[in-house]
Amino acid sequence: MTTMYKNVAYDGKARAGVVTTAHGEIETPIFMPVGTRASVKCMWQHELEEVGAQIILGNTYHLYLRPGHELIEKVGGGLHGFMNWKKPILTDSGGYQVFSLSSMNKLSEEGVRFQSHIDGSYHMISPEKSMEIQRALGSDIVMNFDECPALPATKERLRESMELTLRWAKRCRDYELKEHQNLFGIIQGGLHFDLRTECMERLTEMNFEGYALGGLSVGEKNEEMVEFCSDFVHTMPKDKPRYLMGVGKPLDILTGIKNGLDMFDCVLPTRNARNGQFLTHHGPLNIKKERFKEDTLPPDPDCSCKVCSNYSRSYIRHLYNTGEYLAGQLISYHNLHFFLDMTKQARAHIIAGTFDEYYKTFYNNYTSNQWT
Amino acid sequence: MTTMYKNVAYDGKARAGVVTTAHGEIETPIFMPVGTRASVKCMWQHELEEVGAQIILGNTYHLYLRPGHELIEKVGGGLHGFMNWKKPILTDSGGYQVFSLSSMNKLSEEGVRFQSHIDGSYHMISPEKSMEIQRALGSDIVMNFDECPALPATKERLRESMELTLRWAKRCRDYELKEHQNLFGIIQGGLHFDLRTECMERLTEMNFEGYALGGLSVGEKNEEMVEFCSDFVHTMPKDKPRYLMGVGKPLDILTGIKNGLDMFDCVLPTRNARNGQFLTHHGPLNIKKERFKEDTLPPDPDCSCKVCSNYSRSYIRHLYNTGEYLAGQLISYHNLHFFLDMTKQARAHIIAGTFDEYYKTFYNNYTSNQWT
Repeated sequence: MTTMYKNVAYDGKARAGVVTTAHGEIETPIFMPVGTRASVKCMWQHELEEVGAQIILGNTYHLYLRPGHELIEKVGGGLHGFMNWKKPILTDSGGYQVFSLSSMNKLSEEGVRFQSHIDGSYHMISPEKSMEIQRALGSDIVMNFDECPALPATKERLRESMELTLRWAKRCRDYELKEHQNLFGIIQGGLHFDLRTECMERLTEMNFEGYALGGLSVGEKNEEMVEFCSDFVHTMPKDKPRYLMGVGKPLDILTGIKNGLDMFDCVLPTRNARNGQFLTHHGPLNIKKERFKEDTLPPDPDCSCKVCSNYSRSYIRHLYNTGEYLAGQLISYHNLHFFLDMTKQARAHIIAGTFDEYYKTFYNNYTSNQWT
Repeated sequence: MTTMYKNVAYDGKARAGVVTTAHGEIETPIFMPVGTRASVKCMWQHELEEVGAQIILGNTYHLYLRPGHELIEKVGGGLHGFMNWKKPILTDSGGYQVFSLSSMNKLSEEGVRFQSHIDGSYHMISPEKSMEIQRALGSDIVMNFDECPALPATKERLRESMELTLRWAKRCRDYELKEHQNLFGIIQGGLHFDLRTECMERLTEMNFEGYALGGLSVGEKNEEMVEFCSDFVHTMPKDKPRYLMGVGKPLDILTGIKNGLDMFDCVLPTRNARNGQFLTHHGPLNIKKERFKEDTLPPDPDCSCKVCSNYSRSYIRHLYNTGEYLAGQLISYHNLHFFLDMTKQARAHIIAGTFDEYYKTFYNNYTSNQWT
């Protein structure tokens, strides 16, 4: 099988590439909007295309519970048909939500037994069950089922977790997915370089179609994560996509790109939107603030999106303050456009060999925090 | 001053026309989406244009309280600029909300003193104040400030109310609006033909730019309203727009059109959307129902809108059941498209002289209630 990743350019450690799937190509580096329950919150599918989304995420845990993977396969032949999204989809394994959302969960060699956060019913997700669900969802990129311990954790605990994750990875690898599906291995090991390296090497022997860094951005300090990425990412396989799971803020993503990562996802642009936060080229802007009451400027004057071309801060502040649905719609749209424009620009600058310059300018503007 | 209404065709009592405003022409009969607080709920402004909206409503009471008419005039030069809606706008007088929303209100010859439903603060809306607010909002069609008593009411009470409404109408008429604004008189009088006729004649002497039927659909039986409209509407001035306020359900609107009314507004398509109700050519469809769980059909198979062309009942049911924002967005969009397509089709059939046929077919399909 040929690799799904093709490199286009390097600029330092940063890299631009193309990831090929049955539902189309993805130009990397790329940000992936999160469509937890078969919907990126407040966004129509055609709006996702408008803001430049090339691939979106679905959550195995949520879709398993509601409406159920069997229904999605029966009704839509998978998630693509069910939600009418024609471009690539990545599904997570359900592991993270089982640990973070379920009120009760019990870990064993077999998998995780847990209670639904919705109705308290009992369920078991094992590596095989996670693969069964993701197979039914028909995602282009499938994540293996891993354990994700909260940091800080002892090295001993992290090693145990890593060993379990590796045994589970083997069981996922042995599961037969659909022809078009690609399985990614998840590298665990906390901030320990040696553990991560060992995990990566042992996963590489199983020959996954891509590799993800899991268990970061779950409690450790930001600088620690940045430093770890700087040291580690360039040692990852060069011929496979590299995915930093659940990260994150604009500068974290840009730093990830600088270190050679290709794929990123985070609920931040849509979740913060519903709290009134615009991400802008000059830092986060909280639309609730009194200072924007009569402000006729667009949310981000350096942005060309449909929101910034049509609506003023004053108007959106009014919508937000009166609880109008349109506020969440407008801010989500802009924020996703902002993230996707950022990864698009980063790619163009990597290809042009000017990424460092782009990084510095973006960093300086973003940290100027004009709106605090 | 020339009249803003130009008739294009009659078919029985039903009529097709053109209403001209400074912000463009409105082809009547027309349904007007309600943008209570400077936003038609869940809809972007360009989406309103997509579904065929030619004029929208704003609510004086709500906009006066938040963000305030002065702010709207200062920031946007009026409501058009504030919310970036370039087509015509009609604003109500605030009267209806003062009576229905305020926890405390005191009626006097001067106007209505009331407490805000938001923070309990005291305010006074008089005919002059209502005109001042609507002048600042810059709406193309301004409604006079009337009293709207709940039905049933004694004839004596209705006459008193009508006399007050007429004195207030005179004060509104004497107020200087902006050059481009048109003032509509509101005909009150419950279901009493003689009161309504007297009210209309005395309003006509003041020469308003259009006439509205107020105080209907506020407690009386539906058949009573239908019967009243059938007898009364054709006696209204022929050279002015005729507006049935706050009505209503699809068949009520169609019956209104049949009787010669031109303009309609109602929150029903957007409010019911948020409760999971699609309006379809075969009656209301409640997407929550178990029977739609695996239904791959579009919400309304006879509809060509962006929702019905792209999403299944099964998917939208899932969105609704999990509380996804997109559910409200999709159903609102379809329902507004449905109402606006209905008035558009009605107009075409009036012009073609086939309105009765359209009415019968629509009526029979709609009352077949396939989805109950």
